[in-house]
Formats: sequence, structure tokens, C-alpha cells
Amino acid sequence: MAIRTVVWGENVHEQHNRVVAQVYPKGMHQCIADALNADPAISASTATLQEPDHGLPQARLDQTDVLLWWGHAAHGEVKDEVVERVAEAVWSGMGLIALHSAHFSKIFKRLMGTPCNLTWREAGERERIWLTSRNHPIAAGLPDHFELENEEMYGEPFGIPEPQDTVFISWFQGGEVFRSGVTYKRGAGNVFYFRPGHETYPTYHDANVQTVLRNAVKWAHNPAARIAKPTEAPNVPVQVALEPITERGPRLHHDGEEGFR
Amino acid sequence: MAIRTVVWGENVHEQHNRVVAQVYPKGMHQCIADALNADPAISASTATLQEPDHGLPQARLDQTDVLLWWGHAAHGEVKDEVVERVAEAVWSGMGLIALHSAHFSKIFKRLMGTPCNLTWREAGERERIWLTSRNHPIAAGLPDHFELENEEMYGEPFGIPEPQDTVFISWFQGGEVFRSGVTYKRGAGNVFYFRPGHETYPTYHDANVQTVLRNAVKWAHNPAARIAKPTEAPNVPVQVALEPITERGPRLHHDGEEGFR
Amino acid sequence: MAIRTVVWGENVHEQHNRVVAQVYPKGMHQCIADALNADPAISASTATLQEPDHGLPQARLDQTDVLLWWGHAAHGEVKDEVVERVAEAVWSGMGLIALHSAHFSKIFKRLMGTPCNLTWREAGERERIWLTSRNHPIAAGLPDHFELENEEMYGEPFGIPEPQDTVFISWFQGGEVFRSGVTYKRGAGNVFYFRPGHETYPTYHDANVQTVLRNAVKWAHNPAARIAKPTEAPNVPVQVALEPITERGPRLHHDGEEGFR
Amino acid sequence: MAIRTVVWGENVHEQHNRVVAQVYPKGMHQCIADALNADPAISASTATLQEPDHGLPQARLDQTDVLLWWGHAAHGEVKDEVVERVAEAVWSGMGLIALHSAHFSKIFKRLMGTPCNLTWREAGERERIWLTSRNHPIAAGLPDHFELENEEMYGEPFGIPEPQDTVFISWFQGGEVFRSGVTYKRGAGNVFYFRPGHETYPTYHDANVQTVLRNAVKWAHNPAARIAKPTEAPNVPVQVALEPITERGPRLHHDGEEGFR
Repeated sequence: MAIRTVVWGENVHEQHNRVVAQVYPKGMHQCIADALNADPAISASTATLQEPDHGLPQARLDQTDVLLWWGHAAHGEVKDEVVERVAEAVWSGMGLIALHSAHFSKIFKRLMGTPCNLTWREAGERERIWLTSRNHPIAAGLPDHFELENEEMYGEPFGIPEPQDTVFISWFQGGEVFRSGVTYKRGAGNVFYFRPGHETYPTYHDANVQTVLRNAVKWAHNPAARIAKPTEAPNVPVQVALEPITERGPRLHHDGEEGFR
Repeated sequence: MAIRTVVWGENVHEQHNRVVAQVYPKGMHQCIADALNADPAISASTATLQEPDHGLPQARLDQTDVLLWWGHAAHGEVKDEVVERVAEAVWSGMGLIALHSAHFSKIFKRLMGTPCNLTWREAGERERIWLTSRNHPIAAGLPDHFELENEEMYGEPFGIPEPQDTVFISWFQGGEVFRSGVTYKRGAGNVFYFRPGHETYPTYHDANVQTVLRNAVKWAHNPAARIAKPTEAPNVPVQVALEPITERGPRLHHDGEEGFR
Repeated sequence: MAIRTVVWGENVHEQHNRVVAQVYPKGMHQCIADALNADPAISASTATLQEPDHGLPQARLDQTDVLLWWGHAAHGEVKDEVVERVAEAVWSGMGLIALHSAHFSKIFKRLMGTPCNLTWREAGERERIWLTSRNHPIAAGLPDHFELENEEMYGEPFGIPEPQDTVFISWFQGGEVFRSGVTYKRGAGNVFYFRPGHETYPTYHDANVQTVLRNAVKWAHNPAARIAKPTEAPNVPVQVALEPITERGPRLHHDGEEGFR
Repeated sequence: MAIRTVVWGENVHEQHNRVVAQVYPKGMHQCIADALNADPAISASTATLQEPDHGLPQARLDQTDVLLWWGHAAHGEVKDEVVERVAEAVWSGMGLIALHSAHFSKIFKRLMGTPCNLTWREAGERERIWLTSRNHPIAAGLPDHFELENEEMYGEPFGIPEPQDTVFISWFQGGEVFRSGVTYKRGAGNVFYFRPGHETYPTYHDANVQTVLRNAVKWAHNPAARIAKPTEAPNVPVQVALEPITERGPRLHHDGEEGFR
């Protein structure tokens, strides 16, 4: 079965900025979904901020293997309850791919536990993306480096936890560097951040970028059955301990009760 | 100068449960602070849930090098704004040591980005704590293993991100194992989780446990000046780029403005 | 195409010890290969110490996607040149799974850069293997824990580098714990160490152990084309620099020459 | 007591190349040692390839807290037994700092278990070193970036294991990036690799570079007593098991014997 993928787009710039609308006439989310659907192993649809529940009701997340997230101007408008719902889906096994300005999305910051801040400059400068982890599945079919002639600069220090894999590092014409592809595991879910994708440039039309996105969806996909209650902390009564033990000393709790939260 | 340390205690069980009050007549937080103050390199005071701002106003955090956190029954009563204040202090360089049931504290979950759940059993069983990272500073002066004759069991899977260092792993009489000492870096702050410390047992009177706590304070202490604005994402105007570049293509932002959040 | 897998067995105890020969009449390597071949996605053959080149000539490694390694009494008899050949194959993308006493094999120590030492006891005691990374691909289809009624004990501290993923931790009846399933990346190759498998017990006949081995082969398999020269350090002449630069200052080397080793 | 530090220099280019001799009239090793000795917390001496045992007999390593290593043209002349001796010292707790072309030294490759290869160009181009881990002890007192106007280029992919901390990433004028400061733990020893330092440029006279080196020595220093036998794998006889167990099933070994290697 194809990997059930949802591309979430904030869909704000496309509606209010003529430049962005020209580069992405169907919206950035649709451009990305089209690129993913070019691979028969992936079945991608879209969701946007403006839909009820931002297009991400529980029933849909339950049927989503991998979620891609692009947001920028409207991070603050994303409802906290949807953010928590997405976080729980990740912990239960859904993959998440955060794109470009989604470094500051509520969901990415929620999963990282860090500020996720950086320096930035919008000058259409050259970005060269270097592979640091050879033959990493996310880099399949890519050369050791590729270029985007016009991109926004993001610079270090990038306020993230030390990654599980550092896959890409970018060189910028103006003199900065940036960890552009980094992976994490959060609960049972695989998380990938990928830097390029400023809305005024045709980045998501780039063949190498599209290859990264398709690879990343496959990498992030966890085929195991979703964990039913990813935040549960079950009590194990003394009577069913795996090794026979006898209760000793005082206690605060009764058998089988929930722990304090 | 001694490491300025604050031991935060929820201080609920000590007030409402006779057993806990007998084991910790001055409160768990005071017992821990006393253990820390036995080392002249540490200067420890206490703060509790019941104080204004839970005893953690900004001015006090600004003067705190390392914060220890013990909470259990009242995690939900900790104000979100204090949690964010503590998180920012960690990102700016303050050390944080989360103790026992603080695995479910708002601040620890906030910094991990994961559920931090586990299995548990309150049977006063034997716990044996094994050192996994020899000569780790947090294990200075400890043997390869030590025992606590009566402790609550916490079992794997423990819902944390893969640690930077795994320092201790516990063996439990009833058949479980648990990663009992794990380290992280969050922003400029060092974070350590240490498992033992159930309120009905005299764990914080144990000499080995006290050694771990003193070591952990020294390990977590970052002597560098605190980062002033740990979440800031500064724009770098084209005119001051480190390498001379010329602006190209369309742009959304003006020089020096704040990025979207 | 099925994953081309080779199970390397030292094949010494099976020839000299009646107990081992009874438990594994066809050899441990063949028992493991049979378990792998039960999955049509895997095509497993065997190699042993006694064959020319220990059964691992370059031509065979070139056609091997994943190599499993079991050795114990004869670590010292494995030729250094074969060890280097296997290491290069791993760096170029071959997966490696080190089993049980292979913690002390030349190839595993070579790839870890650490002593890989531990404590041990041969008492046929109970081992309980706990999952620490829920829904990790190597744990697919497994419960949160499973038991081996008779195993050799391996205890912490285990002299390995901090793993990329800690997948399993073992509890032992005699009071020890051990990181029983750990992953690494070395060059382009995925490496997994799995603890159980003492030769005098029927561990490799256990259904859960066999599931782990099949999962591990799939996890370790890197479908990318093998890297041709995984240790090469190419010179990039000034004339072909990606950004135009002019040579400045003194130099030691000529264009295109090899670096010193 | 000051941190007992040894700067190991290959001392070949200084003897055979006039340019290098002019930049480092007392040798690169002495220049580095002088920079370290400017801090009263450090007591640095030197050792060179040409001395008996390369200046690193066991007795000296036993009294060395941190070893710095610079080598290039003569990696192959370093005796394997000295490499093993240094590796054991690291595992037992000695810190190691590998400098520049020491990425290809026997000792660094030995501890990494990977090829440690890279791309390179000797053109005296500009290198800008960015801090990625804010307030890391190795970056104490440094700005977010600093420049070396003339350096050799090293480019990704760099064949190292994923670091424990990525502290610095370099930008090069010719278009490459490189992870220039990375940390590891190997046994009880802290390991740091720092990229800059090509022999024909005055890099080790640079104030920021000298700050990094002094910081790194302090970071790498493990004040704990050295582990006596860092590769030992002790047997734990059944009779002294921490939990009472009875021997069951067949066994290969006798109590207290050494494991196979």
C-alpha cells in the first residue's frame, strides 16, 4: 500500500502575495504533493490552515503515515489542540517532516523542546547543500552536493537538540552555514527537518529538493501499527510482577490506579 | 563562587501524608538542599509550589546556576508561565536536574518533546543502579553499582528521546529495567534526569544518591554568562553580510524586522 | 530482490563440544541462516572461519548486503586483512550484525574504537529483554519484553560508544543489566549489536530472537549502490572550486595528489 | 594542580620545509604548548615522532591528563604499539585532542572506527568557523563566528561517526562546509577533533584558535582516577552473584577465568 501522506500548507502567502502566487499557482502544498505523487509508493493529499481543524481532525491523522508541514506567517494561528493532536500522532508512530520556516512552527518546537531559532537574510543568494551522511536513505540518488541559486539564508547557531543524524549542511554565498537536514525520533515517530523552501523562490520545483522530499517520506514512514495510547503510564500491580516479590514498606497508591500528572 | 542552586519541591505529600512527613520532617526539598550544602562548592536554597510564583520569579532564576525539580501529585498546579520561564532559563544556560516523578513534570516534558511515560509499581522492592558510562563526572566516586533496598519501580519503555549520555541503568527485583540517569543539552543548558526518590522511602538520605546529586549539580553548571535572548532569531541585513552579496529576486521582509512566529 | 545475507560462524565449539553440537547439529551459523531464510525477503548463506579467506573473499563481500557475525573462542585466529576487508565493506554500505560474544570480535572492536568489554557469568540464568525504543523497526512484532530462560549473563558497564539507538536492555536473574540491542552507523553501513546467543543454550531456536534477527537484517540493509572508494580523500584543485577563488600563500601539495596517510 | 598536557608534534615539515620553519621556528608543537601554558590551569610539554617511543612511553602517558596530536606526512611512521598504548590511555580516562590533518592519524582513526576521510584543497582561502552549540565549554569566550584568512580547505562528507556534540562548522570561500569541531567519548576518555591548523599558515598563532585549544584541554580533562584495566572483562562467579541464583544447564567456562578474545 502506498504511504499515506498529507502535506500541510499554511496557504497564506499564496493568497496575499502576488509573487508567491505566481511561483506556486496551486499553492506550495499542492506543488509538494504533486512532487510526492510522482512516486507510486507515495499517496499524498493536502491540508491547510483555513480548513476546519486545519484539515487535521483525529480521524485523518489516524490514517496518515507521514505529515509534511510548511508554515510561516501564521504559526500563531494554529490551534494548540491541533498541535497536541499532531504531537500525539507522532509519538504513536506518524512521521513528521518540517519544512523551512516550520523551524518556528508550534509543532516542531513542541517536539524539539528547544527554541529552534537561527539567523536569517532574504537576499536570493546561492545555497549549496552538502551531504554529510553518505548513503543515508534521505540522500538516495543525490550527488555529494547540489545548489539552489536563489534562497533565503538561515544561519547557525540553530537552536535544536543535537540531531540523531546530520544529513545535510548548507553553505551560503553571504558567508553562513546551517544544518539543513537533521533527523530525530520522538516516541515511535521519525522526524526530519529540511531547510530549503522560501516562498518567493521556486525551490519546491527543484528536482533535487523533490528527491529529498520523496526519500524523506519513505524514511519517516513507520509501517508498525500505531501505538494506541502513547502517553499512558500503566501501573504494574505486585501480584502480576514478572518475578515474585512481596510488597514492603508504606505506599501512596492503590493497585491499577493512574499515576499523577 | 559556589554554584547557586535551588531545590524546587512540590511540598504536598510532606504536608498531607504522615509517612512522608516522618521520613522528611523538613520536606524533601530541604533534605536535598542539606545534602548539596555539605559540599562547599555548592550553595543550595529551596523553593516550593506554595510560594508566590512557586518561588521562582524571574529575578531568582537569573541568579540560579542549577535548578533541581521534585514534583508528583501537583504537576498540574504548576503555572504554565512559570514553566516557560524555567524553560527559557535552561535555554539561556541554567542547568536542570529532574528527580524521580518529575519525569511527568511540565518542565521536563516541555524540554524533552516526548511523553516521558513509563510503567511503575509501588512495592518497596530492591533497586540496583548500574553505572554504564565509566568515569562520567556524574558518577565520580561511585562504585560500578549501588543498591536501594526499598524503592518504587519504574520500567521501560521510558518515553524519552535517545539521551546524549546514558549514565545509569536500574535493575528491579520484580523484573524490570530502567534508564535511571540520562543527560541532554537544551539550548545552552545541561539537563539531567535521575530516577530514584519515591517520597515514602528514605532515598534522599542515601549516601550514594547524595553523591550523585552533588556530582550532577557540578556537571550541570555552565559557568558561561547567560545568553541574553535565547529565543531570538535576528535578521542579518544584506548590507552587513560577511561576504559581499547583492540582493536578488523578490522578498517578503524588510531589513532588521522580526521573523514570523 | 531478496536481501543477500551471509551468516559468519566461527564453527569451533560445534566441532569440539558435544553440548553445543547437540543444540546446533548443523552449526549455529546454519541455524541462524535457516531462521533468516524463513522470510522470503531474505536470502541467507553461511561462511566459516575454516574456509579460505574465512569464506569472505572480496568478491563475496561485494555481493553481500548484510553480514552477521558470531565468534568466540577463535577471535584471534581471524586474519587482520579479512577484518579490514569487512570494515571497508561496512563503510561502503554493507550492514553488519554482531552477535553475542562477537562483542569481542576484531571487526566489532575495529568499528567501535572502544574496548567493548563487560562482565559475564555462565550460569544458565533467566534473561528478560526489554524494548526501550517503541516501534523501532528492529523490534517489529515483538512485545515490550520477552524472556530467555537460560542464558549467559553479560553485565554493565559495557565498553561501547553511546549508541545511536538503544533498542533493548536486558534484566538478569543474578542482578545485572545490559544494553542488549544497540545501533550505530559507520561510514555508509548500519551496525547492530544483539546480545543473546550463548552457544550452550538453544537461544537461536527462540522465536522472538529469530524475529529480532530478521528485523535487524532488514533494518541494516542499505539499498543504495555501494560506495566505490570509501576511504578516499580527493583533492579538489583550485581551478575547479565551486566558487571562484585565487590561490594565495604557500602550499605543500600539487594539484590532484593524494593526501598523506 | 594544573592539567598535565602533552602536545605531540610530528615535527617533519618544520625540519624539511622552509615556509613551515619560518611560521613555526620552534615547531608547531612548541607554539601550541606555549599557547596552552599562557593559562595557569594548564601545564603543557611536548613530544615528537623522533623521540624514543615517539616521546610517549607508558610512564609518561600515565602522568598525562590530556594529549594533543598533530601529524600529517608521517602518519605511517607512528608505531602501532604506541597507537594502542595511547588508545588504552584514552579508554582509561586521558583526554585526546586531534588537530587538523590528524583526522588521518592512526590514533584518531583507531578511536573512531571509520575512514575519517574528506575532500581538501590547499589554496590559502578564507575559513569562517561558526559556533553551533552555544555556550559549549569549548566555545567559552568566543563570538558566534571567527575567521582565518588563509587556511587549507577540508570539505564534507567527513567520514566520522555522528558526533556527541557538534561544536563548530566551517564555511570555506571556495564553496565547501565542514564539521570543524566535534566531540566523542571513548571509554572514560573525552575526544575532540578541531579542524584548523595547516602547517604553512600561522593558524596556531591566532588568538581565537588558541582560546579553543585552552578550552578544549579543560573540557577533555577527566579528573577521576584513571581506570586501571580498561579492557578487562571480569567473570562474576555464581557464588558471588548479587542476587542468589543456582547454576543451571551446561557451561563452557570455569569460575574466574578470562573470556576468549
